[in-house]
Amino acid sequence: MSSVAEKVIAGDIRAVARLIRDIDDGMPEVREILKELYPSTGKAYVIGITGAPGVGKSTLVDQMLNHIRKDDKTVGVLAVDPTSPFSGGAILGDRVRMQRHSMDEGVFIRSMATRGHFGGLTQSTRSAIDVLDAMGKDYIIVETVGVGQDEVDVVKSAHTTVIVVIPGMGDDIQAIKAGILETGDIFLINKADREGSDKTMSDLRLMIDMDKKKYEGGKWKPPILKVQAVFDAGVMEFLEEIEKHRQYLIETSDGLQFRRKRNRVQDELTEMVKNRLIEEVLENLTETGEFDRAVDSIVEGKLDPYSACDNLVLPALGVSSGGPVKGSEVL
Amino acid sequence: MSSVAEKVIAGDIRAVARLIRDIDDGMPEVREILKELYPSTGKAYVIGITGAPGVGKSTLVDQMLNHIRKDDKTVGVLAVDPTSPFSGGAILGDRVRMQRHSMDEGVFIRSMATRGHFGGLTQSTRSAIDVLDAMGKDYIIVETVGVGQDEVDVVKSAHTTVIVVIPGMGDDIQAIKAGILETGDIFLINKADREGSDKTMSDLRLMIDMDKKKYEGGKWKPPILKVQAVFDAGVMEFLEEIEKHRQYLIETSDGLQFRRKRNRVQDELTEMVKNRLIEEVLENLTETGEFDRAVDSIVEGKLDPYSACDNLVLPALGVSSGGPVKGSEVL
Repeated sequence: MSSVAEKVIAGDIRAVARLIRDIDDGMPEVREILKELYPSTGKAYVIGITGAPGVGKSTLVDQMLNHIRKDDKTVGVLAVDPTSPFSGGAILGDRVRMQRHSMDEGVFIRSMATRGHFGGLTQSTRSAIDVLDAMGKDYIIVETVGVGQDEVDVVKSAHTTVIVVIPGMGDDIQAIKAGILETGDIFLINKADREGSDKTMSDLRLMIDMDKKKYEGGKWKPPILKVQAVFDAGVMEFLEEIEKHRQYLIETSDGLQFRRKRNRVQDELTEMVKNRLIEEVLENLTETGEFDRAVDSIVEGKLDPYSACDNLVLPALGVSSGGPVKGSEVL
Repeated sequence: MSSVAEKVIAGDIRAVARLIRDIDDGMPEVREILKELYPSTGKAYVIGITGAPGVGKSTLVDQMLNHIRKDDKTVGVLAVDPTSPFSGGAILGDRVRMQRHSMDEGVFIRSMATRGHFGGLTQSTRSAIDVLDAMGKDYIIVETVGVGQDEVDVVKSAHTTVIVVIPGMGDDIQAIKAGILETGDIFLINKADREGSDKTMSDLRLMIDMDKKKYEGGKWKPPILKVQAVFDAGVMEFLEEIEKHRQYLIETSDGLQFRRKRNRVQDELTEMVKNRLIEEVLENLTETGEFDRAVDSIVEGKLDPYSACDNLVLPALGVSSGGPVKGSEVL
């Protein structure tokens, strides 16, 4: 085993910090280390926290850390800040607040931004979860702004997914991506002293009840809790709900090892293969200038994009661009 | 040139219908035909219409067809109905209404659903636009439900992008994906007789004005129009705004040939290469059962996903999975 992997498993904070940064930067060396760490994963409980900017996710996480630490459990926090052009929020600013835990060896907090060219935020967050898991953290909290497909995928990596809203954002309940709402295991109304919290509660209740059939036969029905994270009001009860959901997962066929369940493995591997393919080939085509030359030819009207695509992709796959394409059934 | 391409260019409706269906079904044969058609494209004016389900997009398109046909211009309509699990709406039902134009040879209407395994809705819609363009249609209207990244990309293929909202959906203005709002060239408030249309107007105005800097130096500033499509009220004025936007594009550096502008060609080719790679490799891995065997190994705990990914991807690219990977800089 490499010394990096050994250090991570031994809980060496500097080694972990550096490895996560390398993951975020998309360094290819990390793959071999992740392979070595994988057998040590599968023990941490992963909690996903998502919601629009300004709903108080960081304050909430801050309070969660206090409670979890009092219980003598260790925690890793990943704050996912997508650099997508459509993202909002100033996650990095909020991070400062959480730094009051920075002297506590039982807490490890990192932001993920992912500067890779060709996507891969979901992938790198999953890898970072693996690192914190191998490091021995009892809980891993993944905090994301609830925007975009990437983040829907990120929260799917959590055992318990928590969706945070605030009152008076009746609008924004609808604005939460449909895909994210469906993944919610617990709903939190933060800043619950504000006007409109009952309305928000009934709106959420309505939306959850619309999916009634989903909860038949003892399936988990997402509870909705009111909290005031800033005063620590309701946070303990919130953690109890997480524990209930954890028990539910253990007792039902879902289990805690759900990341090794077939359909999840299938999804994650599909995505991993996609990213890897795109990165390997597109990076290479970009470096050699082949891609730019193809773009030039199209712009100058010398080549159609369909032929350009053939010329780029087929040689990369070892197929001569003239001949028939094997194994292809899709445009 | 193949006989299919010849027939399409000659305006043979059956040939066009079949080709678009083959594109939607992801048949690989269509690529060669699209290559032949490409030199005949670039003449049609493409209008994208997007908005939530129920805002009256189909009724609007129906009225647009009447006006455009009175002008003796020909039109193709593509109704894009993503099969994504998060999509809503009953586009196919609405289609029925438009069929009153079905006896008119100057109008060609088709729905796109895209049953391909690995995404590609944007790609197949662009290809269908190329077909209608090569067929000689003066206008191509692409109608999409404003949800999801795919559709943001689809509307980017339009010369003029129109965003349709209705009053009393103040909520939903915020619910329109940020990425789609930014692409809007014209905003329409349909069913403008309903209560709240002034509020909707001022909300939209506010949002557009927030981007003030974007409109400095004579840049196109999206107008907001009130219409009642069902009574044909305001539709003529709406078409005049489209004409103004067309003139603007012709006069400014953007031009009508913007699909051949460098950054657009770059984006489209990147996406085409990505889709093609994923399709070629994943289809093949699925067919041979290699992918399933890798999933099994992970589920059984015999293999980590990182090694599984290497084992699948590297041989497909002609790299031995043991050795160093060339051209890779990303995880």
